[in-house]
Amino acid sequence: MNIKNIDLRSDTFTLPSKEMKEAMMNAKVGDDVWDEDPTVKELETKIANLFGHEAALFCPSGTMTNQIALKILTQPQDDIICDIRSHIYQYEGGGIAYNSLCSVRLLQGEKGILTTQMIEEAIMPDDIHFPRSRVVALENTVNKAGGSSYKLEEIKAISELCKKNNLKLHLDGARIFNALVYRNQSAKELGQYFDTISVCLSKGLGAPVGSVLLANKELIHQAKRVRKVLGGGMRQSGFLAAAGIYALNNNIEKLKEDNQNAGKIAESLKQNKLVEEVIFEGTNIVLFRIESSYSSEKFKIELAKKGILVSSFGKEWLRIVTHLDISKEMIERVCNEFLEIKEEGVSV
Amino acid sequence: MNIKNIDLRSDTFTLPSKEMKEAMMNAKVGDDVWDEDPTVKELETKIANLFGHEAALFCPSGTMTNQIALKILTQPQDDIICDIRSHIYQYEGGGIAYNSLCSVRLLQGEKGILTTQMIEEAIMPDDIHFPRSRVVALENTVNKAGGSSYKLEEIKAISELCKKNNLKLHLDGARIFNALVYRNQSAKELGQYFDTISVCLSKGLGAPVGSVLLANKELIHQAKRVRKVLGGGMRQSGFLAAAGIYALNNNIEKLKEDNQNAGKIAESLKQNKLVEEVIFEGTNIVLFRIESSYSSEKFKIELAKKGILVSSFGKEWLRIVTHLDISKEMIERVCNEFLEIKEEGVSV
Amino acid sequence: MNIKNIDLRSDTFTLPSKEMKEAMMNAKVGDDVWDEDPTVKELETKIANLFGHEAALFCPSGTMTNQIALKILTQPQDDIICDIRSHIYQYEGGGIAYNSLCSVRLLQGEKGILTTQMIEEAIMPDDIHFPRSRVVALENTVNKAGGSSYKLEEIKAISELCKKNNLKLHLDGARIFNALVYRNQSAKELGQYFDTISVCLSKGLGAPVGSVLLANKELIHQAKRVRKVLGGGMRQSGFLAAAGIYALNNNIEKLKEDNQNAGKIAESLKQNKLVEEVIFEGTNIVLFRIESSYSSEKFKIELAKKGILVSSFGKEWLRIVTHLDISKEMIERVCNEFLEIKEEGVSV
Amino acid sequence: MNIKNIDLRSDTFTLPSKEMKEAMMNAKVGDDVWDEDPTVKELETKIANLFGHEAALFCPSGTMTNQIALKILTQPQDDIICDIRSHIYQYEGGGIAYNSLCSVRLLQGEKGILTTQMIEEAIMPDDIHFPRSRVVALENTVNKAGGSSYKLEEIKAISELCKKNNLKLHLDGARIFNALVYRNQSAKELGQYFDTISVCLSKGLGAPVGSVLLANKELIHQAKRVRKVLGGGMRQSGFLAAAGIYALNNNIEKLKEDNQNAGKIAESLKQNKLVEEVIFEGTNIVLFRIESSYSSEKFKIELAKKGILVSSFGKEWLRIVTHLDISKEMIERVCNEFLEIKEEGVSV
Repeated sequence: MNIKNIDLRSDTFTLPSKEMKEAMMNAKVGDDVWDEDPTVKELETKIANLFGHEAALFCPSGTMTNQIALKILTQPQDDIICDIRSHIYQYEGGGIAYNSLCSVRLLQGEKGILTTQMIEEAIMPDDIHFPRSRVVALENTVNKAGGSSYKLEEIKAISELCKKNNLKLHLDGARIFNALVYRNQSAKELGQYFDTISVCLSKGLGAPVGSVLLANKELIHQAKRVRKVLGGGMRQSGFLAAAGIYALNNNIEKLKEDNQNAGKIAESLKQNKLVEEVIFEGTNIVLFRIESSYSSEKFKIELAKKGILVSSFGKEWLRIVTHLDISKEMIERVCNEFLEIKEEGVSV
Repeated sequence: MNIKNIDLRSDTFTLPSKEMKEAMMNAKVGDDVWDEDPTVKELETKIANLFGHEAALFCPSGTMTNQIALKILTQPQDDIICDIRSHIYQYEGGGIAYNSLCSVRLLQGEKGILTTQMIEEAIMPDDIHFPRSRVVALENTVNKAGGSSYKLEEIKAISELCKKNNLKLHLDGARIFNALVYRNQSAKELGQYFDTISVCLSKGLGAPVGSVLLANKELIHQAKRVRKVLGGGMRQSGFLAAAGIYALNNNIEKLKEDNQNAGKIAESLKQNKLVEEVIFEGTNIVLFRIESSYSSEKFKIELAKKGILVSSFGKEWLRIVTHLDISKEMIERVCNEFLEIKEEGVSV
Repeated sequence: MNIKNIDLRSDTFTLPSKEMKEAMMNAKVGDDVWDEDPTVKELETKIANLFGHEAALFCPSGTMTNQIALKILTQPQDDIICDIRSHIYQYEGGGIAYNSLCSVRLLQGEKGILTTQMIEEAIMPDDIHFPRSRVVALENTVNKAGGSSYKLEEIKAISELCKKNNLKLHLDGARIFNALVYRNQSAKELGQYFDTISVCLSKGLGAPVGSVLLANKELIHQAKRVRKVLGGGMRQSGFLAAAGIYALNNNIEKLKEDNQNAGKIAESLKQNKLVEEVIFEGTNIVLFRIESSYSSEKFKIELAKKGILVSSFGKEWLRIVTHLDISKEMIERVCNEFLEIKEEGVSV
Repeated sequence: MNIKNIDLRSDTFTLPSKEMKEAMMNAKVGDDVWDEDPTVKELETKIANLFGHEAALFCPSGTMTNQIALKILTQPQDDIICDIRSHIYQYEGGGIAYNSLCSVRLLQGEKGILTTQMIEEAIMPDDIHFPRSRVVALENTVNKAGGSSYKLEEIKAISELCKKNNLKLHLDGARIFNALVYRNQSAKELGQYFDTISVCLSKGLGAPVGSVLLANKELIHQAKRVRKVLGGGMRQSGFLAAAGIYALNNNIEKLKEDNQNAGKIAESLKQNKLVEEVIFEGTNIVLFRIESSYSSEKFKIELAKKGILVSSFGKEWLRIVTHLDISKEMIERVCNEFLEIKEEGVSV
């Protein structure tokens, strides 16, 4: 990766700042497999408190926190209700079946947002022919739907439906802070509605590695067993946790700007006649589609020539994600460059 | 179950005739777990030959033959492409995930019938984020779609697509003989396109218990291991196999009449004004929906009062299945009774 | 298999008598997947009552009843404590890992009989490095140890230890009736100590197919789901259940004779100088080893020439199992034939 | 943990030196999930070359590299042959069953060292009753046996046996460098005999986090899928990989001293009359047992009072592990302190 590029492919590409690195190097560490890393413990306590949960578990990835959550909430032969665009179904290597031996009911949420009615219809009767409905899993923001997010009352209603039907509620919060700052919601208010929450530190927050699973003490006790068997127990992981603590202390505010930057990009794209469709849901993701005569692929290549990296998203769409390492100045440059790509300028 | 009832809930309710029972009782049997039951072997050879496959395995149910097929064709983390109405996804207790640790791509086939285009779009690229596409599973006839069936050229095209993409092709042939007689296809011609086929003996064919899995010798060798670990190895199962042999020799012809009987029922239902929608695809299943002011539930109850049993199918639909134990005379009576159920006649 | 042979390879080779067959053919049957087979229900109730359990589930094999029991008592990552010779570990195709994702602690019971001390030492501390101890599984009689059996007070003590340590207790009762008649124990007295019991109908009892799982109602409700997903749900299985009912009514008494017959065989074997070791534990199994200069394999072949079939058991041992179809006269003939096999008589 | 303590509980407690930390902070990193972290790639190439393997995969833990190896070498229902003291069986949370659905044949190696004869006897015949023998897994050094190690010719013979029997050979090399320096073997010579090798960087080598899996390209391609589904894919993990590279460049030599230090400790322990048994196999582990009238627990507590930390190992044994952060001076002090603990000195 050329460092002069403006990398908008994903917010996972952020690099730690000098200050974050210093926090990493100065961290007090120990063997976390023996439960002796004070920095990991500090991170876990900090983020559990933030969302009002009893306990937390630091893991190497968001895939692991999601997969552990589904595992500890289910038994084999259970059924997980989620939007068809969910990361847990689409991008975790078939983990729902592989790690938890669970089936899926895949809903067509409006922009990835589930309603109580959809969920209610997806609950299976108690019949040996069907898997047992056990978990509803929300994603917030919904990556594959362009960063859409839930209103608090929507989540509350879903939570009540779950309780009534003896279902557990999981939140894939890979980009939960983008949602919180966009909707001006409090982490604690939101946190109360979920049995388990996965929070990523290595996306918009800018930490190099890691996600945290939140739940009550008993579930986290079980989660530690699952983390162990999956091989997610790390030794002196305090170095990584320190980056997470730094991120929580310093990088949440920047997410507002990221969301706004994405809005500017969306506006700018709409002015380009090659762009046929733009999806922007208020957070840090923009999805767009180029008219087929030109093609999204060509558009991506033209941008790359200008040092602007975006990612393909399925066969026809492109995705732009703003993040910590993308400044207002970069956004301005990107918006200007968009205007330069025109039908006649193609030369592939 | 009252024996005077006309039971149209499913073709699984058939009872063996006197002749079939005699065939059962006269069977030479042995311990099939030790590979010493001659009648089981005879059935396996007979049905393998019929479909032009090398080998066969007798199992206690169609769920087991389907589940074993998917298991021997896949590894954990693989992906199975099938119609969303498939029995393997809808009615086998979450077995795809439980027995094979595989994910699903659920297609919206037209009446449950998949096209090569749909399948091609569902094949995942080789990327660690996705499960590996490994199996396409067809159902023929498609129970949940009302007994729809494939043309031979459709199957051939899908088979070619699978070969090109290194995918295996499975057939859930729970009611394959209903399809064959309806479409006037030969078992052997059809059989050549599939890596594995599950054939049920205990539906329209009228045997009390059992299904047979067809494949090549190597796969059946593996299948025996899986049958063992699932607990499907039986001792003197020749008693059951004998019924299957009898059914293959004597009951296939009757399926044509079953298909025709279902057609008569469909016609008759259309004449009842309470019936809002009727699905009949030429084989032995009829799906229908009653206008909501009356309700399908009430209609079912009224029929039951008249000694006619039909089954609920989801929340709004009813299903009728014709079979070996349903004669033309019974069909006539049923058709007449349909006309008797009218708006004013309700008293629940 | 030549019908004139005396088949002592296993008690799974019994063939139904004329009376048992008549009971089968006269059975009232229905679709048991729809819970409508009265004969299956009768069998389940009968055997549940016999052992004092709330509920029962008829399955195609003892492997299935064992595997379902372990599944419903455990979660993935749990640990099962059993003797290293257990059928569940040795002969069920790796099912503990495959069906339940559970680990094993393999104990060296004295003749396969576990003690409370052994079990206590095998319980793992609550530590993420270890699987969770969850089930103790006994076998009674222990096939691979030559048909050894438990005293009631031994079982009681193990049951108490399990309760104290929050462990479940399963009984693989493939040959439980041989144990009960040998030790003069009541099924009900014994039954109370176990959470789940698997009882085989197709061994000494002489039914062609089937085993029954016993447990409380809630567990059997779960067990039905597992039976479904394994493919063990059968349609008109009342034909098989009827044989089981007949066996329970008529064939238990004969097991005493089977046990005695095995004793006679053991005595007779000891008189042959080629026989180096004989294991007989009072029930219907005899294990024996031929001196290596002659070899067990040759001994087995010589017996086969005389129409007496025995089975190899590991590399050096032979196994004889007496059963319903073996009369006193046959035993006499077998004992006489033993004496005929001598060093000089060998010609392979 | 008091920093003035001499921590001999495990070599996982090493803390990175100033120089290692600098290497970490100066690492060039990228998103390794997108295959763009140059430092991770450098580490993988370096260690693959060292052992003569085609490819490598960096993972968060040795449990993960072991578990992935077993997964990619097996299918569900396979059987893994290993010593009963193996880390993969004893300390990985039941992962063989959980992650791979495989069974185990547990051998009683002499000091944990398997012989070809033992392995040969453990290979199961091709029979549906048994799991399929598929993998032999060695550990070198064997932690639970006190750090015992294999001669090259022993490994060569086992490798040949495996090839002949179509078995795969895995090496759990958590402490492989301790074995290599002790036996004066070359990594490349040893590496050729194994299909997969797990090498830990966070034990004697002193890196804070991580292990590396070695295999051919095709297996590593599969391994990446498994790492993803387990949640082991990390983003900017180059920070951790840099510590691994530093360790390989700088810390291997020190392992010789660690091995020698352990020898000194073993000698010293033998001089204490309370010590009943000492196991030292030439590498960096010492196991010892205190006479029961005094008790190992008391001995451990007395040592802790003196600032010397050792770990319990089962119920009766204690374990000492020397490592990078333990200097000769510390060893001298520890040896002296041993002499101070006497019968009369007890006061608990």
